[in-house]
Amino acid sequence: MTELLSETGRETMLAPLFEAGWTMVEGRDAITKTYQFDNFVEAFGFMTRAALWAEKWDHHPEWFNVYKTVEVTLSTHDAGGLSALDAKLARKMDQLAG
Amino acid sequence: MTELLSETGRETMLAPLFEAGWTMVEGRDAITKTYQFDNFVEAFGFMTRAALWAEKWDHHPEWFNVYKTVEVTLSTHDAGGLSALDAKLARKMDQLAG
Repeated sequence: MTELLSETGRETMLAPLFEAGWTMVEGRDAITKTYQFDNFVEAFGFMTRAALWAEKWDHHPEWFNVYKTVEVTLSTHDAGGLSALDAKLARKMDQLAG
Repeated sequence: MTELLSETGRETMLAPLFEAGWTMVEGRDAITKTYQFDNFVEAFGFMTRAALWAEKWDHHPEWFNVYKTVEVTLSTHDAGGLSALDAKLARKMDQLAG
């Protein structure tokens, strides 16, 4: 069972993500970001890189893709909200998209 | 510019897709299907195979993935609705998922 982020964890882990373009999902303890790439190859290439990390960490995104756009939502289902794993995967995705 | 499916085209191309589990999207000239796989590796493996065909044919799906589930929606944006390309990609996806 993964632990929900503590108040302190939220401040330290989520603040830099909000600055990087992540936002809270309305009505859910989850974060979301929409990435825009140059084309489908770049968008799906990003998804493929992120998928390998997601599987390695056994922590998977909810994501929607159409052509060059990828909308990602992160939350920890077995914790019922945001955990440190979401912050970790969000940071990794920003790195992979950069 | 891709042509919309004719009435005859709809009958011949869409009927077998409806039998294979595709349905019309409410309020849109688009078809949708939800695939369930055994796990994320199988789900994303399917997406990767489908992505290669989508790029080859320059016809891309709208799709949502969470863990072992992949929801696909197909429509031809520059035609404003369903074209033969959607039927072709739907058949290929069924083949790749099978």
